[in-house]
Amino acid sequence: MAITLENKYIVGIDIGGTKINTVLFKDGKVLKNIKIKTPQKSQKEFLNKLEILINEIIIKPAGKKELSGIGCGVAGVLDLKKGIILNAPNIKILNNFNIKNWLCEKFNCEIKIDNDARSFTRAEYLFGAGRGYKNIVGITLGTGIGGGIIMNGEIVYGSNGLAGEVGHMTLNLKEDFENLSGVKGLRRLGYASSLKAYQLAESGDKKAKRAFEEFSRHLGIGLANIINILDPEAIIIGGGLSGAYKFFLPATKKIITKFIFSPGSRKNIKIFIGKLNGNAGAIGAAALFIK
Amino acid sequence: MAITLENKYIVGIDIGGTKINTVLFKDGKVLKNIKIKTPQKSQKEFLNKLEILINEIIIKPAGKKELSGIGCGVAGVLDLKKGIILNAPNIKILNNFNIKNWLCEKFNCEIKIDNDARSFTRAEYLFGAGRGYKNIVGITLGTGIGGGIIMNGEIVYGSNGLAGEVGHMTLNLKEDFENLSGVKGLRRLGYASSLKAYQLAESGDKKAKRAFEEFSRHLGIGLANIINILDPEAIIIGGGLSGAYKFFLPATKKIITKFIFSPGSRKNIKIFIGKLNGNAGAIGAAALFIK
Repeated sequence: MAITLENKYIVGIDIGGTKINTVLFKDGKVLKNIKIKTPQKSQKEFLNKLEILINEIIIKPAGKKELSGIGCGVAGVLDLKKGIILNAPNIKILNNFNIKNWLCEKFNCEIKIDNDARSFTRAEYLFGAGRGYKNIVGITLGTGIGGGIIMNGEIVYGSNGLAGEVGHMTLNLKEDFENLSGVKGLRRLGYASSLKAYQLAESGDKKAKRAFEEFSRHLGIGLANIINILDPEAIIIGGGLSGAYKFFLPATKKIITKFIFSPGSRKNIKIFIGKLNGNAGAIGAAALFIK
Repeated sequence: MAITLENKYIVGIDIGGTKINTVLFKDGKVLKNIKIKTPQKSQKEFLNKLEILINEIIIKPAGKKELSGIGCGVAGVLDLKKGIILNAPNIKILNNFNIKNWLCEKFNCEIKIDNDARSFTRAEYLFGAGRGYKNIVGITLGTGIGGGIIMNGEIVYGSNGLAGEVGHMTLNLKEDFENLSGVKGLRRLGYASSLKAYQLAESGDKKAKRAFEEFSRHLGIGLANIINILDPEAIIIGGGLSGAYKFFLPATKKIITKFIFSPGSRKNIKIFIGKLNGNAGAIGAAALFIK
């Protein structure tokens, strides 16, 4: 991917279960950024508010006429060809909705869609912690665990556009990665809120610290599996929980080292926290227009 | 990969722990095939016999002068750039040996090397069960479990040439795929020989059949993990144990279906047994010369 989108205004949208983030993007830079809470009452309310939001982000400095495209990342399983959201567990009002057609009709420009984890990975690859690498795996650590794979500088979509569902890798012969780590993993250990777990750990609470240890162990095993299969140069971790990295990253790195098979991978693998923070998803969606 | 190697003689070698298989390859066809038992006494004996074997396979109809290249697949972890066998658990006399330099000095032609699982996968992709697909994962089911990944028609090597070590994916938070399935998985269930387990199952022995059920369950979970991560069109299974497919493939397919996350992958995934049998590794090594 080389950056060739000069002088064009692109809107990048990141639709998640709790918020919708938008950026106005030009020449590899974010000119403007607006965030709203994800409307969850009805599909109609959602679409009304999304339309207002997109209009608001492009009205200045670009104007609707100058808009070249809209890139839209959605937290869910998508039919990329048709543009349909097949299954968005945290935004159920969008299930089976053709977001691509709707955006196209409303804004009359080129529309590209992708899932949230690949959008995150693309953004970090082009503009963040993954710059300069050709083989990376991006991991979004939130309520679920998502993944984006870049090999030889190309996003791996798989044969049905479904590659990267690393959160559904089974780790204990029964449960999957995202049930054993991520927010669900913390819930399993008795923490309804990961923020609460974080705050308790921060205040020195031993039980919360142990919960993060357990979380780190599962995270490390899951990431080591990915490294054994794909031998990337770097793993970039993002998502809501990545902010708590000081409670899990050192222990996770130790576990990863233990479970990587090849000495070459063990020696060379890099584990980073993403650099673009909350804007990664929206930037990566806008970057769908970068060829 | 398009086949462009016309009118050239290539020797393909597959070095495994129990046998060395060689093919003389031209225009996408095997002209000749010789197999020997892997010499295990000393490196010197090994190299003497390998040299005799290669001379024997090229002397007719090609002659040494007409040889364009030697492709060599080895069951082990390799440094592909330098040509060194870093770790061959079942042919320890080759550890740290530079096979590429040795072949080059002895035969004075272009030498390419790769591991056995990627060689198998390349062969099945070009000439066997994977023909017509662009995204496949090849699995060699023997003493260990190896993997080769082809995405968008390109072999995935990873950043250190170590991608595809699927056998070392941890499946129960402690042990890896190849300890839970494959020959080691059968050993764990009390069968020192997989042939014995096969023969017992064939004769109707209930305990052996149950062992294959357990084996299938672990195999299915491991393959479902790979499918969730990579979303291939097809998985091609080879290796010594693939001959026992009737005892594990139906049950494995059921488990895979249960553990695949995305309905699209679940519906479309194909699981095949390789078509090239014992020659796959050597053909895939020769096919390193196909661009």
